[in-house]
Amino acid sequence: MEYPKSDLNKVKRGAQKASYDKEVVHQLLDLSPICNIAFTVNDLAMVQPINFGRIDDKLYIHGSHKNRMTSALLEAKKVCLTSMILDSMKLSKSAFHHSVNYRSVVVFGKVRELTTDEEKLNGLEAIINHFVPNRWENCRLPNEKEMKATRVLEIEIESASAKIANAPTSDNKTDEDLGFWAGQIPIRTVCDFPIPKDEKQPELPDHVQAFYDKRKDGF
Amino acid sequence: MEYPKSDLNKVKRGAQKASYDKEVVHQLLDLSPICNIAFTVNDLAMVQPINFGRIDDKLYIHGSHKNRMTSALLEAKKVCLTSMILDSMKLSKSAFHHSVNYRSVVVFGKVRELTTDEEKLNGLEAIINHFVPNRWENCRLPNEKEMKATRVLEIEIESASAKIANAPTSDNKTDEDLGFWAGQIPIRTVCDFPIPKDEKQPELPDHVQAFYDKRKDGF
Repeated sequence: MEYPKSDLNKVKRGAQKASYDKEVVHQLLDLSPICNIAFTVNDLAMVQPINFGRIDDKLYIHGSHKNRMTSALLEAKKVCLTSMILDSMKLSKSAFHHSVNYRSVVVFGKVRELTTDEEKLNGLEAIINHFVPNRWENCRLPNEKEMKATRVLEIEIESASAKIANAPTSDNKTDEDLGFWAGQIPIRTVCDFPIPKDEKQPELPDHVQAFYDKRKDGF
Repeated sequence: MEYPKSDLNKVKRGAQKASYDKEVVHQLLDLSPICNIAFTVNDLAMVQPINFGRIDDKLYIHGSHKNRMTSALLEAKKVCLTSMILDSMKLSKSAFHHSVNYRSVVVFGKVRELTTDEEKLNGLEAIINHFVPNRWENCRLPNEKEMKATRVLEIEIESASAKIANAPTSDNKTDEDLGFWAGQIPIRTVCDFPIPKDEKQPELPDHVQAFYDKRKDGF
């Protein structure tokens, strides 16, 4: 299953790196704890990092009711967001061909506010379980006061594209023999062993150990 | 020296984590290979990751002349961008208090296109040396054809804020004795040892070794 291609999400530069496959898009979204969301305030396009959740073709974000970003998104009713994992710095012989390898996603979607407690809890569960899988059943769920203080938005993905750049450093043929060093500096986002808050914490639970095991060598 | 506070850049949530100090903002910008830039196309706020450079209060980005983002920025004449380094996932006893530690910057600035070769080269040098310090003197500089194909924009920082969240996991007093595990999962972005493009490359140069030494344990 693919997302439809439109003027919005069709990748123009480096089209051979692009994928519109839903599974690829979803997998990349699930790897990133954080996405960057664009929104408009007083005619200015702004951007802010935020954590999020996903269920099928729907993403979830949350904030307080006074939050500038969620207010702007509800007004616009549509949104663009992106996530990216940087994999390497590519150093070529020429300044012009320097670039990076990465895995990124751009999503375009429709925004609506979730209003019933059932819908909101469903969205918050997706956010917490995106944060650390299976965390929702391993923490205290929101009480009435917390639910009232929290705004939850659903983003229905309408189109999206993934871009996976994993090519070697490229150089012009005429630059190949220049004496400059060319190659890659690999970049990884890793996690270190979890640190309990204090000595009163129980033994490390399976879901936290599993998160560490999966991400310790890279996202 | 501080950036002026305005409605745009004044941090409302978690104000105690905020800094407007120019040195703090610049240091955080210099740590991030990538920023996320917001721009408007057909009334929709969009966001895209991009590499950039900095000289004092000015940032530089580049793209082709057909690039949608740089075209939109030149039309708007103003921009918001952000960069963020994720430092830990904070798991609290309650779903509500889950959060992350991070170092982030939001910048608001004025955009103009650089038109003379001298200005453009100055911007490109900043971008390449932000990519890897001292790289500009260790690669072939742009030729006439490459210069013509490249659009370089200058972003003059008008206001900015840094936000550094590095607090321990927090919990409501009434949740302290719940049996759930609470603590942090540290996250680091690291680089691995540089990999030459092929066996014809010279010995690893000092500037690449220095980049690796500085970033191998984290950005």
